[in-house]
Amino acid sequence: MTPRPRFLILAEGAFNPVRSKTANACIRYTPDRVAAVLDSTQRGKTAQQVLGFGGAIPVVGSVDEGLAHRPNALLIGIAPQGGQLPPEWRGIIRRVLDDGLDVWSGLHTLLGDDPEFTAHATSSGATIHDLRRPPRDLEVARGRVRDVAATVVLTVGTDCNIGKMTAALQLLDGLRAKGHRVAFAGTGQTGILVDGRGISVDAVIADFIAGAAERLVLDAARDADIVLVEGQGSIIHPSYSGVTYGLLHGALPHAQVMCAQPSRTAIRHNEWMAIPPLPEFIRLHERVVLRPAPVIAVALNTYDMDDAAARAAVERTARDTGLPTTDPVRFDPAPVVDAIDAFHRTRPR
Amino acid sequence: MTPRPRFLILAEGAFNPVRSKTANACIRYTPDRVAAVLDSTQRGKTAQQVLGFGGAIPVVGSVDEGLAHRPNALLIGIAPQGGQLPPEWRGIIRRVLDDGLDVWSGLHTLLGDDPEFTAHATSSGATIHDLRRPPRDLEVARGRVRDVAATVVLTVGTDCNIGKMTAALQLLDGLRAKGHRVAFAGTGQTGILVDGRGISVDAVIADFIAGAAERLVLDAARDADIVLVEGQGSIIHPSYSGVTYGLLHGALPHAQVMCAQPSRTAIRHNEWMAIPPLPEFIRLHERVVLRPAPVIAVALNTYDMDDAAARAAVERTARDTGLPTTDPVRFDPAPVVDAIDAFHRTRPR
Repeated sequence: MTPRPRFLILAEGAFNPVRSKTANACIRYTPDRVAAVLDSTQRGKTAQQVLGFGGAIPVVGSVDEGLAHRPNALLIGIAPQGGQLPPEWRGIIRRVLDDGLDVWSGLHTLLGDDPEFTAHATSSGATIHDLRRPPRDLEVARGRVRDVAATVVLTVGTDCNIGKMTAALQLLDGLRAKGHRVAFAGTGQTGILVDGRGISVDAVIADFIAGAAERLVLDAARDADIVLVEGQGSIIHPSYSGVTYGLLHGALPHAQVMCAQPSRTAIRHNEWMAIPPLPEFIRLHERVVLRPAPVIAVALNTYDMDDAAARAAVERTARDTGLPTTDPVRFDPAPVVDAIDAFHRTRPR
Repeated sequence: MTPRPRFLILAEGAFNPVRSKTANACIRYTPDRVAAVLDSTQRGKTAQQVLGFGGAIPVVGSVDEGLAHRPNALLIGIAPQGGQLPPEWRGIIRRVLDDGLDVWSGLHTLLGDDPEFTAHATSSGATIHDLRRPPRDLEVARGRVRDVAATVVLTVGTDCNIGKMTAALQLLDGLRAKGHRVAFAGTGQTGILVDGRGISVDAVIADFIAGAAERLVLDAARDADIVLVEGQGSIIHPSYSGVTYGLLHGALPHAQVMCAQPSRTAIRHNEWMAIPPLPEFIRLHERVVLRPAPVIAVALNTYDMDDAAARAAVERTARDTGLPTTDPVRFDPAPVVDAIDAFHRTRPR
């Protein structure tokens, strides 16, 4: 790792609670690393005003204005569908590289392979960090997670961008408070950014998705009693289910935590694909695993509801599924923490 | 396409009915393109003696011996697990490139990106064809196959290397004889080699598996009433299920043809993973699709049984599953052809 980053986060036109996932996670979990957010459409606000958290972190309208807050790096804080680099960002990236800022990117387009960007970085001494760059020496999976002593828990969900990473991160403190050695296994650019390690499983060659998941779990299990693996996508996602299944079958979890958003009834960007009722979706998830892996708790994402509606949704979901349920961001994560703790202590070995 | 290839097929140490999948398909479907097979452990035999088909195609023990049969290209005819280039083949590849032979490869390691090989190819005027090289401009899937008028049929299976490509290829003639315009959509290096087009979906970036499948089907459906899509892997394969699901959810078939090998009871190279009874596996396959896609027929692979046992297996499977069943290589493919024809004529539109 290079010197501690202090980011100007690029989120032009998309800084909001839903679309700027990488920006939002960075602000939530590592706010001391954020100098400012660039989105000219929200200029003058604070992160708190836009997201409901993030305090006084300012939103700026231009690169120049951002540089006044003395960042030492640019973070690309939004992920366009498909993960390609929007052409209009090329000028911004060249500009900050010339100013000596590092660039951190979670795009599929690997900026460090772009001759123009590497030329600008080389001449100013800046570094380009591609969070999605896969390791070179991946192997195909072969079920080696079955030999791991740690309890492996995977957060799964009904759709993309529904809280699988956030749920896992919100559980760490509670599980540690109970005396467990817990590792977070990041599987996407945002989780890797927050935790500092991991593999972006959606960016590896298709044959190696499960192999990447296997390696992540094996590595994380070395110093942990419980491994929390960040899930990806959804098993019913028309675009990304391959990643979801490869991760599910490579990580071979002992248990699953289901993440859902009560207000979401269809897959985003694929409205033709309805999300089934949660109890049915949970049964399907328990059917498609390669070794038994019960869904032991539900983590709801109620960011778009008021408190009363959120509480009602939690109660209704607990009743419908028969499972411990909470919104681990809005309310106490304890119900999910306790479920994992109890599962870890009592699971057959 | 370059001039019609006449291959020396590299299958060193692995030319047999099971392991040399690419070699075998090339010999079965395009025998006029095969000059000789290189496997020093089978030297002096014919393809017919090793595989049970392929006639007088000779097996040679060295490159020199192979060149005497006047090939104009080398085909890498075996796929090591993981798809990497075995180091001991580098010398062979350099040697044939220097002799002006083209090289066709289905490895994950893209030979056309190897500076040493491209240097040798450039100086002799040879061409390197990487069958697994993904298109540059893939998009994420978004369910566009739903707009296709053609009937989309996917061959699926209990394991890798069990006959999904072969089943599809064996059905083409029968369906054409019934007057249908049929397209084969190749999804792996071997299918692409035989058909001359396709995308190796296991070699694309994980986020684009379904997108690649979607594009394949859209392209194939342009001039066809029935699209036969070559399936990959298995939905219970611990290494490759991500590819299988991405293909299943991107291709959005109207119907599925189940491929199985009666003698195989566990996933190869992952013996811990038992293959469930076929009726149960078929129910699972019909459960995990994103729109209804009944399994309408079964194609068995009985290559390792005698005729009586093969007939008994076909009868037993037809009874157990209630579906038209055959071994489309050993016996008449008609039961599966008829099932697809009937489905195509009567499916709800």
